[in-house]
Amino acid sequence: MDTSKNRHIFFRTHISQIVQLTDEEFEQVLNCFTFRKYKKHQYITQQGEIGSHEHFVLKGIVKSSYTDPSGKEHILQLAMEEWWFSDINAFNNEQPATFNADCLEDTETYSISFENKEKLCAESKKMEYFFRKKYTSGNIALQKRVLALLSSSAGERYNQLLIQYPSLYKRVSKTIIAAYLGVSRETLSRLSSTG
Amino acid sequence: MDTSKNRHIFFRTHISQIVQLTDEEFEQVLNCFTFRKYKKHQYITQQGEIGSHEHFVLKGIVKSSYTDPSGKEHILQLAMEEWWFSDINAFNNEQPATFNADCLEDTETYSISFENKEKLCAESKKMEYFFRKKYTSGNIALQKRVLALLSSSAGERYNQLLIQYPSLYKRVSKTIIAAYLGVSRETLSRLSSTG
Repeated sequence: MDTSKNRHIFFRTHISQIVQLTDEEFEQVLNCFTFRKYKKHQYITQQGEIGSHEHFVLKGIVKSSYTDPSGKEHILQLAMEEWWFSDINAFNNEQPATFNADCLEDTETYSISFENKEKLCAESKKMEYFFRKKYTSGNIALQKRVLALLSSSAGERYNQLLIQYPSLYKRVSKTIIAAYLGVSRETLSRLSSTG
Repeated sequence: MDTSKNRHIFFRTHISQIVQLTDEEFEQVLNCFTFRKYKKHQYITQQGEIGSHEHFVLKGIVKSSYTDPSGKEHILQLAMEEWWFSDINAFNNEQPATFNADCLEDTETYSISFENKEKLCAESKKMEYFFRKKYTSGNIALQKRVLALLSSSAGERYNQLLIQYPSLYKRVSKTIIAAYLGVSRETLSRLSSTG
């Protein structure tokens, strides 16, 4: 985003979907976050690192993934504008990160440390409520993801993703979509040519 | 549990792992929950029902599962003593339940409606904090579950479950364990005979 004023409007509009803040309260929130810019391909976090942050995406796409000992990559999340992402265990329990987070496009975030988040929630009942609701949405999305992995065929998962996030297909390579769906690149090609 | 006093102690001890409540505050919490008893095989919720509650398990085991149109059952969660469970989307968005919840043993719960939970959180900063932390734990467990489904073999998932919840194998049938792991009953038999 071109100006800090535009970023503030974008972030405040996002928060106002759940709670209404006064100017002073929003200033207090902003003071807890750090604005960060990343280039395409840059890593925000690498597996094993300590000191994870929680991030709100202002612009760009971030891929959260786990590379297993054989070198195969498994994608947990693709976070775009207005999404939150974190390695929730690493962030909340001060553990080494399980996931890599790297940028598929030039990316901008507002990022918060665990200490700042807890301080903000302790001082602001509105923001405690906001984050409880955000984690509720996260839980819903993850329950749906588990159910899709257990019960849906690759074709069904592909179609669900296409309906939910049509823009993803224009912005992200097929190799990455395949890793997100948990199918081979060949299976995905077959699905997308018949879809 | 044999007496209401024992149930109160069990629940209060659970809450005190995250927040310390005064006697009056705990009384306020208790007033928002309903004590419920279910027989083995009884349903707490059925797919499609409106009016989901969030439940804390005092005793027993509850299976949350989705039966697909072909009649195959997929298990999201097996909740035992001191676990919370709900169909998070149905509960928070007042939608029809996606999941069945039925009891694998005689079960007792403290259950709360959406209205009572929101009222309690609005009135009690401590309980707002408590539920934010509980949903954080839920998110962590679900991120791990997604990662296991994407990256682990059936054998690895079986061994992880065995280490995490050894008592589950004594209390739950192999057919149910197989549905939880997303493998066939035959695959599970092979794993458990070589494990």
